[in-house]
Amino acid sequence: MGPTERTKVPATRMEDTVTNTQITLVQIDNYGPWTVSPEPRREMDLQTLQSRLFADLAQFIGSRDGYVFFTRFDNMVAVTNGMGRADHHTLQESIRNRYPVTVSLGIGVDSRPSEALEDATERLQRAGSAQDSDRREVFSGSFREPTAGDDLQIAHFDVNDATEKYTDRLNEFDSFIQIEHGYAELMRYMRESHGALSFFVGGDNIIAVCPELNSGNYRDAIDHVADAVDVQLKVGVGTGETPHEAGFAAKHALEDCRYEGTAVEFAAGHATAGD
Amino acid sequence: MGPTERTKVPATRMEDTVTNTQITLVQIDNYGPWTVSPEPRREMDLQTLQSRLFADLAQFIGSRDGYVFFTRFDNMVAVTNGMGRADHHTLQESIRNRYPVTVSLGIGVDSRPSEALEDATERLQRAGSAQDSDRREVFSGSFREPTAGDDLQIAHFDVNDATEKYTDRLNEFDSFIQIEHGYAELMRYMRESHGALSFFVGGDNIIAVCPELNSGNYRDAIDHVADAVDVQLKVGVGTGETPHEAGFAAKHALEDCRYEGTAVEFAAGHATAGD
Amino acid sequence: MGPTERTKVPATRMEDTVTNTQITLVQIDNYGPWTVSPEPRREMDLQTLQSRLFADLAQFIGSRDGYVFFTRFDNMVAVTNGMGRADHHTLQESIRNRYPVTVSLGIGVDSRPSEALEDATERLQRAGSAQDSDRREVFSGSFREPTAGDDLQIAHFDVNDATEKYTDRLNEFDSFIQIEHGYAELMRYMRESHGALSFFVGGDNIIAVCPELNSGNYRDAIDHVADAVDVQLKVGVGTGETPHEAGFAAKHALEDCRYEGTAVEFAAGHATAGD
Amino acid sequence: MGPTERTKVPATRMEDTVTNTQITLVQIDNYGPWTVSPEPRREMDLQTLQSRLFADLAQFIGSRDGYVFFTRFDNMVAVTNGMGRADHHTLQESIRNRYPVTVSLGIGVDSRPSEALEDATERLQRAGSAQDSDRREVFSGSFREPTAGDDLQIAHFDVNDATEKYTDRLNEFDSFIQIEHGYAELMRYMRESHGALSFFVGGDNIIAVCPELNSGNYRDAIDHVADAVDVQLKVGVGTGETPHEAGFAAKHALEDCRYEGTAVEFAAGHATAGD
Repeated sequence: MGPTERTKVPATRMEDTVTNTQITLVQIDNYGPWTVSPEPRREMDLQTLQSRLFADLAQFIGSRDGYVFFTRFDNMVAVTNGMGRADHHTLQESIRNRYPVTVSLGIGVDSRPSEALEDATERLQRAGSAQDSDRREVFSGSFREPTAGDDLQIAHFDVNDATEKYTDRLNEFDSFIQIEHGYAELMRYMRESHGALSFFVGGDNIIAVCPELNSGNYRDAIDHVADAVDVQLKVGVGTGETPHEAGFAAKHALEDCRYEGTAVEFAAGHATAGD
Repeated sequence: MGPTERTKVPATRMEDTVTNTQITLVQIDNYGPWTVSPEPRREMDLQTLQSRLFADLAQFIGSRDGYVFFTRFDNMVAVTNGMGRADHHTLQESIRNRYPVTVSLGIGVDSRPSEALEDATERLQRAGSAQDSDRREVFSGSFREPTAGDDLQIAHFDVNDATEKYTDRLNEFDSFIQIEHGYAELMRYMRESHGALSFFVGGDNIIAVCPELNSGNYRDAIDHVADAVDVQLKVGVGTGETPHEAGFAAKHALEDCRYEGTAVEFAAGHATAGD
Repeated sequence: MGPTERTKVPATRMEDTVTNTQITLVQIDNYGPWTVSPEPRREMDLQTLQSRLFADLAQFIGSRDGYVFFTRFDNMVAVTNGMGRADHHTLQESIRNRYPVTVSLGIGVDSRPSEALEDATERLQRAGSAQDSDRREVFSGSFREPTAGDDLQIAHFDVNDATEKYTDRLNEFDSFIQIEHGYAELMRYMRESHGALSFFVGGDNIIAVCPELNSGNYRDAIDHVADAVDVQLKVGVGTGETPHEAGFAAKHALEDCRYEGTAVEFAAGHATAGD
Repeated sequence: MGPTERTKVPATRMEDTVTNTQITLVQIDNYGPWTVSPEPRREMDLQTLQSRLFADLAQFIGSRDGYVFFTRFDNMVAVTNGMGRADHHTLQESIRNRYPVTVSLGIGVDSRPSEALEDATERLQRAGSAQDSDRREVFSGSFREPTAGDDLQIAHFDVNDATEKYTDRLNEFDSFIQIEHGYAELMRYMRESHGALSFFVGGDNIIAVCPELNSGNYRDAIDHVADAVDVQLKVGVGTGETPHEAGFAAKHALEDCRYEGTAVEFAAGHATAGD
């Protein structure tokens, strides 16, 4: 069963959920061919271009209380609740003015993050191939009206005692392999079980953009990763109107896990029926 | 058997090989605690800081014909053949002058990249924990004298028809999962079989820093990944005095794969005994 | 007569004018001492830090339709109509999270740009010296409520035939001296005659933030510079709710000067009583 | 008498002097037209592009112990003793790979900085106009062979009590006008009297790249500025093989001025016959 089938969700489930995630897919136009035209470009220049473009997105979107993840760098996934059409146009124009490449933007909204990304992605795919030299600066999206509701649930995971168990004991690549094991397993589990999107954000940290999940769901995820690859995770969960609000609450909840030695903590006042 | 045991190499093998890789481990000092002091910092500011620090390393090291990989961002692995003590000191000083964090540098040299990183890592570990607030700006390394020999072998892999099969058909996260499957399997196989260090560099590209390997070794790696996770890879291989020289030859060889539909190509004039 | 006396404006004139400029003074805290502690820092690292900090402000403020000028780099002047308290707090926090220095912000509003800056500056001066090590991250301002009115008048000057007369004929430093002559004379004239703030923005371009002025005022300024230092200027003038709107209109008006060979052009629909 | 005539130096003087300054002129190709094509681009995006390009030059050149000054941003002047042809080619390529614009490079060497820049500039002018759309990535230069001699003399000026007299008392623009008065007068005097190139580097600092001058020459310059515009300067002077070595010595000498209340200090061991 391919990933796309997995994303089908029974309408009933749609009813229950309260999250409404706005996802923006940022795709560099015709990037692959550009990197080898007229001949391959210096790899470190490409690495610089990619990471600085991501940093600019992180500042633009982050200062508007959104989140963006580097994903594959030529395709970046952002959570943009609170950002409207004008903000997205300014972003697209600013990149055109300052980089040798342009970007296309697809924006989708759904109760399940994976569905929102599915919509955002299809908007670009319908306009042509990512490597179609004639397809530039696609702009297509549906936007979530700002609300006072807690549209987002964000989970911030990290690895228990990563520094003691890995960084200070193994060589860096082997530490990285361990962290990557845990991330790979978690990203797949959360995607397939809940339509959540999980991203490695450096160190031993993983941030997941989730539909409405409860403590039991998170405990199951942590148990699954521990059983599958023997990596012990803990998680702080927050909800809010914007990614920053939800993610910041999640960071504080994760601090609670550290102090109390617990595996799952929800930000105060956001415990769910499942608890 | 843990990763560290795996890195033991019989002395005999050391004799045979001709590569000599200089690896620099760049570790942000006490970064984890800093990110939550006095309270958690905005995630997008951390993402900006990390990716710009990496970009600066990519420019500094890349313009000296080296390579650097973001790995976990708080720990970055660089291949620095040709860069000596003075260059490393200038790099460490420049970061201290421009960032709110400092970095420690460990440098090691070995015929096997994993052994070189093992040495580089141990030099930092011996100085204290990565989260020891008193351990700042460690500088410890052994440096490879510049030679005219082809000290490095670099392999540039990509995924066959990634755009057609994934980017233009699946939603971005599911495409990412597929690419990540292939990367995770390859990184582990190359590490365990050959002590090679493989890094995802964006899109569908993976760059591996390898000991002296032959076409058969690369074909086996590609077959292993295809069997294990059904992701089809191809690879261009180059050798040279510096990472840029070896990596640039590898990019050209990968172009040859594209034009000729082959799975493994060595840069002209660098075919090995194993062919 | 010192500069501060010059800024006194008769109340009557205040009545007439319709512009309302919000100025933000961004001052790096205790920067001078930091640059030589514990010993002088590498000049090119300081130049990098300063220009990147300015670039970040240009993106943050510019993407909100404001303008910022590098001025002395350790003190930067921004026009921030449309940006409120929350935006300014996010900016101050983001710099603290990503740089080894912090900034203080003073915000003032007045019909005359120089008066708005006077107020913004005094707010920081009252909190202590720019080199007081205890004075960090001052935040003090009055904010202009967003309106639908044309609060701003921005003039975009350039030098006639600068490339032909200077860049392609003199060595770069002598070209720079000529441009600088014109800028120095204009900045003083506009400041003293009108309380306008003029900034060199690169090439042969000068942008002035002005109170309500008419064509005659601009012709007089151009004539003054021509008589004093024999540098021929032309200017496009625009008005708008935000610096970007007014400045963009000014750029278009300057294009009109180029095509029609005129010295002063106001953006269409914004001719003033003085015309 | 135009600026170019002023640069003629009697051959006899050439004999006496020992400095040998290598100057690189970095000129953005056809930049003016690009900024308004197809229509004017957002000013803050242009400001970001310019200041980040300068920052990249500062890191590339500065980490090789050179200096670069932003001058007009579309034309930047660098002192590149110690940087050869290969470094300059890598710089030109890296900018092409990462920016929407390209740069031309002219390199000249002379005992007098202004003559070196004259040569560097003419190399670009001979290739075509700075606004010739067909003239891209000119690369023309003569390079100074690395020597063990003190090829460079750099002077670091600042304004006495700038913070107390200006920053903490006047509004920022009026402080800026005062500093600018001093800079404008000094840049012209040093250029006309000695063929030295002086650049404002932020705050109240001016760095001058000079031929062999003695204490009397610097005292005269300071007196001239004080008489002409009533701005009191002091200066530290250093010599060295590279701009960083000479400039760093100058910074230390300027610190000596601060502690000892003197107006002119030469770095220890570099006092000249004129003393």
